[in-house]
Amino acid sequence: MDYASLIRDIPDYPKKGIIFKDITNLWKDHAALKESAGEIAEQFKDADIKKVIGAESRGFITGALVAVELNAGFVPVRKPGKLPWDSISESYELEYGTDSLEMHKDAIDSGENVLIVDDLIATGGTISAVIKLCERLGSNIIGAACIIELGFLNPRDKIKVPVYSLLRY
Amino acid sequence: MDYASLIRDIPDYPKKGIIFKDITNLWKDHAALKESAGEIAEQFKDADIKKVIGAESRGFITGALVAVELNAGFVPVRKPGKLPWDSISESYELEYGTDSLEMHKDAIDSGENVLIVDDLIATGGTISAVIKLCERLGSNIIGAACIIELGFLNPRDKIKVPVYSLLRY
Repeated sequence: MDYASLIRDIPDYPKKGIIFKDITNLWKDHAALKESAGEIAEQFKDADIKKVIGAESRGFITGALVAVELNAGFVPVRKPGKLPWDSISESYELEYGTDSLEMHKDAIDSGENVLIVDDLIATGGTISAVIKLCERLGSNIIGAACIIELGFLNPRDKIKVPVYSLLRY
Repeated sequence: MDYASLIRDIPDYPKKGIIFKDITNLWKDHAALKESAGEIAEQFKDADIKKVIGAESRGFITGALVAVELNAGFVPVRKPGKLPWDSISESYELEYGTDSLEMHKDAIDSGENVLIVDDLIATGGTISAVIKLCERLGSNIIGAACIIELGFLNPRDKIKVPVYSLLRY
């Protein structure tokens, strides 16, 4: 499927000089919504994935779809203070300052195969923080997958697990 | 399926006196993740739903799954400033103060049948704001659906479309 034609470029968002890749038109297309998740799942169908991990907020959409395609559970990774039960936290660097992400301590059983899914991978900072959370719970990280990879930001230099993307810029 | 056994009660979260219904253990169970969305979709399978609308953030998870089950597109409704393109906004009352939700202007075509999905319906404030956004884009709102409905807060008094829930407290 020609996913690229469904990605809308938004110049100067969120700030001047950045061309934002808007994925909402892909998700509102019923065929692209389903097939993009199915194509990611297809790559990992023999990996016995037990949990798919998605980061707040857009990672929840394709992440949950990939989880169902793989007969896996879905685990949300959230911004600080959003998870109600005992959680672990990892901070990561933003362009300006730092942020952190949290995961429930009982989200993954030790030794489980997991796949990390996001809509877009840019610098790889978010994914790297999610990898650390998964490692702390003893999981076996099979890979990270996304719809859009901003290859010109070299995220694979930072992400230490295999990366699969449908679209690479 | 016994969804209720997968809902974890968290006392005094987010503040004293509130018993929070934690749905994350339901989503991490692969069968419950899939079946809960499938059961919601089953109720609307003959309604020719073109778009499923889900509110940030937890509404994205089950919302996207229901969309795929119905062969519909998925439309995220987001907190202010998170959508990159031209959007409309509706404010709604919280227990303390107000908040608002936004939707892209081109998210729904006029006359399309839509279904609003959230993980949990409490007072109905969020769903009512989403209904207003959908109405402003000329959509035909078939209903609202959720996994957990806090019936003791009487959300159906406020929500003016049919409500379907898997669990009602």
